[in-house]
Amino acid sequence: MFVLVNLKAYPCDPVAVAEAAATVADDTGTRVAVAPQAAHLSAVAATGVETWAQHVSGVDHGSHTGSTLASAVADAGAVGTLLNHSERRLRLAAIDAGLRAAEDAGLETVVCANNPPQVGAVTALGPDMVAVEPPELIGTGTPVSQADPDVVEEAVAAAGRVDDDVPVLCGAGISTGDDLAAARDLGSEGVLLASGVAKADDPEAALRDLVSGI
Amino acid sequence: MFVLVNLKAYPCDPVAVAEAAATVADDTGTRVAVAPQAAHLSAVAATGVETWAQHVSGVDHGSHTGSTLASAVADAGAVGTLLNHSERRLRLAAIDAGLRAAEDAGLETVVCANNPPQVGAVTALGPDMVAVEPPELIGTGTPVSQADPDVVEEAVAAAGRVDDDVPVLCGAGISTGDDLAAARDLGSEGVLLASGVAKADDPEAALRDLVSGI
Amino acid sequence: MFVLVNLKAYPCDPVAVAEAAATVADDTGTRVAVAPQAAHLSAVAATGVETWAQHVSGVDHGSHTGSTLASAVADAGAVGTLLNHSERRLRLAAIDAGLRAAEDAGLETVVCANNPPQVGAVTALGPDMVAVEPPELIGTGTPVSQADPDVVEEAVAAAGRVDDDVPVLCGAGISTGDDLAAARDLGSEGVLLASGVAKADDPEAALRDLVSGI
Amino acid sequence: MFVLVNLKAYPCDPVAVAEAAATVADDTGTRVAVAPQAAHLSAVAATGVETWAQHVSGVDHGSHTGSTLASAVADAGAVGTLLNHSERRLRLAAIDAGLRAAEDAGLETVVCANNPPQVGAVTALGPDMVAVEPPELIGTGTPVSQADPDVVEEAVAAAGRVDDDVPVLCGAGISTGDDLAAARDLGSEGVLLASGVAKADDPEAALRDLVSGI
Repeated sequence: MFVLVNLKAYPCDPVAVAEAAATVADDTGTRVAVAPQAAHLSAVAATGVETWAQHVSGVDHGSHTGSTLASAVADAGAVGTLLNHSERRLRLAAIDAGLRAAEDAGLETVVCANNPPQVGAVTALGPDMVAVEPPELIGTGTPVSQADPDVVEEAVAAAGRVDDDVPVLCGAGISTGDDLAAARDLGSEGVLLASGVAKADDPEAALRDLVSGI
Repeated sequence: MFVLVNLKAYPCDPVAVAEAAATVADDTGTRVAVAPQAAHLSAVAATGVETWAQHVSGVDHGSHTGSTLASAVADAGAVGTLLNHSERRLRLAAIDAGLRAAEDAGLETVVCANNPPQVGAVTALGPDMVAVEPPELIGTGTPVSQADPDVVEEAVAAAGRVDDDVPVLCGAGISTGDDLAAARDLGSEGVLLASGVAKADDPEAALRDLVSGI
Repeated sequence: MFVLVNLKAYPCDPVAVAEAAATVADDTGTRVAVAPQAAHLSAVAATGVETWAQHVSGVDHGSHTGSTLASAVADAGAVGTLLNHSERRLRLAAIDAGLRAAEDAGLETVVCANNPPQVGAVTALGPDMVAVEPPELIGTGTPVSQADPDVVEEAVAAAGRVDDDVPVLCGAGISTGDDLAAARDLGSEGVLLASGVAKADDPEAALRDLVSGI
Repeated sequence: MFVLVNLKAYPCDPVAVAEAAATVADDTGTRVAVAPQAAHLSAVAATGVETWAQHVSGVDHGSHTGSTLASAVADAGAVGTLLNHSERRLRLAAIDAGLRAAEDAGLETVVCANNPPQVGAVTALGPDMVAVEPPELIGTGTPVSQADPDVVEEAVAAAGRVDDDVPVLCGAGISTGDDLAAARDLGSEGVLLASGVAKADDPEAALRDLVSGI
């Protein structure tokens, strides 16, 4: 199971969460990555944790003021990137371009989608992984694996019909080891989580509980 | 073969083009539709031609000032809509929502895409038809079927891998009967065209030449 | 006082509201206009009511699939357009371009803004009128003139500091004659309203009550 | 004169340009700042140069995956930010929100605009500085101060009519000391430049030539 902690724009200390994640990853052998804002990438990567970007632009070098290029996040230490998170939905052509840019920069990719048909769609673009996150469950604390287990199974099926080599992650409301175990049992090969760790009083304890479900 | 004439925002007389299209459709038995701007839909539909929208929003009734709802274009006489044209690229979630809204309003759908992977992606969302239009060839007068025949065949293959019941149209640079015949021979079941008819001195003659390729 | 009824994407019958507005305008001598979706403009204009668009694109004729040009809404019978409604916020450059396009097409303009500083900003672009609509009050039924009278007075002052010839309208929660009278007393020269008329059981009665405040 | 070097998404070494800028600023006493991509901010700030962001989002802490918050760029060492660059045009409400967010994070602000009316508009929002950059001259190598001197004088006048305490910078095509001197003589209190330094074989020499115009 791959555990990807999205720090969003939360008022957490990104370095503290990164250090907690690095410790839990080392202690348990679980793959845990942390995705901070672009401006925090260098500081997070310096902790040694696997570092991901939350988004990259699909453009190449050039006159693109205010963009975050795949090559720049790689310079800052990122080894992967989310694309099309429900809080940063992209045009279809931009998902495609972002995947090409990430690939050129050597970044691994997880493309998010809201529902099984959209999971099928993004799988057709050739990402490394896809993730299903029903927007209505994000931030609720109710895990998708419990609130809507069918959506996880259908997402796995939808991806599989297009390309059965693309792992499916799930997210929304995941915070405990039970949630993670339930996600795995539904066919998910990893989880996206955010507030459950980033807003926890003790992020390391929250992560230890989570990975206990593996 | 389905011939869909996109009037874009050209300075043509939409009613004159619609009347020409209606005449050619009646005389030849070819399916020809015309897609004007939303504000011109009623006038175009009044000619009796098959009328399509260029875009619909994916939202439902509500507080959405400045939107064009599927139900509103249906009220105005449209029976179908384009979605995700390269000049109106949409977020993946908006293509999905637009398809649902169009379906609810009884509209037929053509979802456009720039390249074969994107054609595969949009096919997974369940449209009635898909169309491949390489952006770099739009408006060039060089038909996609001649400039880049592989892209048409690959688009047909990409759609077929996801769902082989979804017809593939092609567009970009199509204007003559030869272009249309070439598109058909590459597996396309219709064409999108725009300037070749909308900017022609004699739109009816341009359409007659085009459908002679069938 | 100018009364502009924005039908948004409500599930109302736009022609019935337009007929009610035309009747009240004729009977009372009040200036009342109706702004339907672009696809409904022709049908609304055919009632004889003063017809406005909810939005126009700032682009000129050309390859702009899915756009609504100022010239097209004028073709359909519109004599004015809203720009930058809080449900269709525009880039600053697009407000500027939309104003130029509207002017070229002979359309009158009302540019909306969320707060007094933004009212000052849009006044600098040379619109015919500006409107302040605090987004948090839209659709609440609580009139801005009562919930936040200072915002109306400050908006009038902010516009006046830039150009004191530009009338200021206000909107959000306006529905009764008392609301309209209060808006006028705060310096507003008109009102934007939507649900109070468009969702009323009897739009004509709602409008008669509203204009009684003048 | 304030010299702000925008690195855009150019394939330059941001640290090398930053070191050159720091050296020239120290040697000449000129205020020179460098604005890299968000992911490069920490590395640029570590050189000691005055560091600016190219863009910040107007949102506050929360569920905003893929955003760049003002507080995050400040964490990374930025002391100011551009907003509304013509390559990252913002909705009017987002410029306003970005200014509030920047102010809360202690960042200085330069809001860009395409023409004098837009300069007047953004001045009404209360930025620290404004900048006029005619988009058609960006990247041309033809300085705005020579190609279109009126636009600089009119921008200074437009800002002054709204608030005469807001300094006006200019940009587009600026690269030499003569360009800078001409900009100053037209009323500009600084310059934005990009390719003239970022793409120079010797950025330090390019900057020395530029500041020789002061």
